[in-house]
Amino acid sequence: MNPAVWLIGAGPGDPELLTMKAVKALGLADVVLVDDLVDPRILDYCPDARIVRVGKRGGCRSTPQDFIQRLMLRYARQGLRVARLKGGDPCIFGRGGEEAQWLSAHGVACEVVNGITAGLAAATAVGIPLTQRGLATGVTLVTAHTQDGGMPDWSALARGGTTLVVYMGVAKLQDMRGQLLAAGMDAATPVAMIENASLPGQRECASTVAAMADDADAFRLRSPAVLVIGQVAACRMYGAPDAPALAETRLRRSA
Amino acid sequence: MNPAVWLIGAGPGDPELLTMKAVKALGLADVVLVDDLVDPRILDYCPDARIVRVGKRGGCRSTPQDFIQRLMLRYARQGLRVARLKGGDPCIFGRGGEEAQWLSAHGVACEVVNGITAGLAAATAVGIPLTQRGLATGVTLVTAHTQDGGMPDWSALARGGTTLVVYMGVAKLQDMRGQLLAAGMDAATPVAMIENASLPGQRECASTVAAMADDADAFRLRSPAVLVIGQVAACRMYGAPDAPALAETRLRRSA
Repeated sequence: MNPAVWLIGAGPGDPELLTMKAVKALGLADVVLVDDLVDPRILDYCPDARIVRVGKRGGCRSTPQDFIQRLMLRYARQGLRVARLKGGDPCIFGRGGEEAQWLSAHGVACEVVNGITAGLAAATAVGIPLTQRGLATGVTLVTAHTQDGGMPDWSALARGGTTLVVYMGVAKLQDMRGQLLAAGMDAATPVAMIENASLPGQRECASTVAAMADDADAFRLRSPAVLVIGQVAACRMYGAPDAPALAETRLRRSA
Repeated sequence: MNPAVWLIGAGPGDPELLTMKAVKALGLADVVLVDDLVDPRILDYCPDARIVRVGKRGGCRSTPQDFIQRLMLRYARQGLRVARLKGGDPCIFGRGGEEAQWLSAHGVACEVVNGITAGLAAATAVGIPLTQRGLATGVTLVTAHTQDGGMPDWSALARGGTTLVVYMGVAKLQDMRGQLLAAGMDAATPVAMIENASLPGQRECASTVAAMADDADAFRLRSPAVLVIGQVAACRMYGAPDAPALAETRLRRSA
């Protein structure tokens, strides 16, 4: 039986990175609520559905979370099949859990459909192997700010031996730099900053922990961007010098 | 232009969790090298390709990594389009980086196609929101053993505030328990152990850090399984008591 609401991960942008399950759900949906960061080409998979834009971009005028949830509930109670399209994966910094819990508490069956999370796609798009043996013991996905407005425990994260992948970090680079250096992270630790991962406008700025804030300024790095911090950020798995993913790379190891 | 070799993430098992890009590449491939953990139904997407099984399951008789790489190279040099299908994502503990580098060094163009990594899919399949605000600052993906046979720095990981998702951990539960408790992690920290995520045989054993090794024994937990450690492991985003994902759950909070 189909749920009343699908919370669908749209992946990083490239429509081909949608899952088959997401495409199937979009094809069945009567109404599709779309976040800002979802590539418009993805809507080709639901040509007959009613499209409702519910962007919620940080710092800009946007649709409140509460309103979006009530909208899903209203449509579901009208008997419509609702798809909510979010960038990346709904449960990786996407509030998928909160929305699913809220809908469940209101008696609406919903299902989360996984998507390729932006951090993993961004690394792959520029040829970074996130868990390369000998360079990392794993990978940690974090945002640059926590719910209460604070910062993650950079000190513990810096010591964990995992590659750090930071979402929503562009505005916090100076703070992160200070925290990571204070935690004892080597100033020369490689950093890759990837803008518009998987999209035609993808750009990469290669830097270090010491230089990342200045380099991002000079590069005019803009959100949405993903930061990869760790030895793997200087590693490339595609050796071909004409690999398209590397064409936009600017090496700025000024540290 | 198509690469000679695609390294494709097959996702956690459910064929619907393949990406469109993976399906397209499989449809173009002349020969498909398949790992043990890939669900056989996924081969329906490449009915005309030659299928070569190259299982490499830990501890069992298996195809050496070196042989697999030479096989890809041989087929690519014959002008065949090669797809290498791996469970999950090729760059999350899948050696995708090593294989891509080796192929590039031998002059063969290759491309990694992301897949839904098993840890994220397993959590979603049982309704765990991995980065739920207020409960976790992010998520860390690790394996229970490192390349040199040692363990990850559980002490730092335990303090980082992220949800821990452990791959290939079933045989190391007793060691992990000791390390996490020694690092000061609360013995009552919830743990979810998920076997065969996204497949019809999916099972979940709910436990705690203190009890996870004994509970897994009693449950007869078998590989492949994913462990989710942290407050979110006791959180469920689907409230419906008859949710299929919860049907196989056995609550064993004996700690």
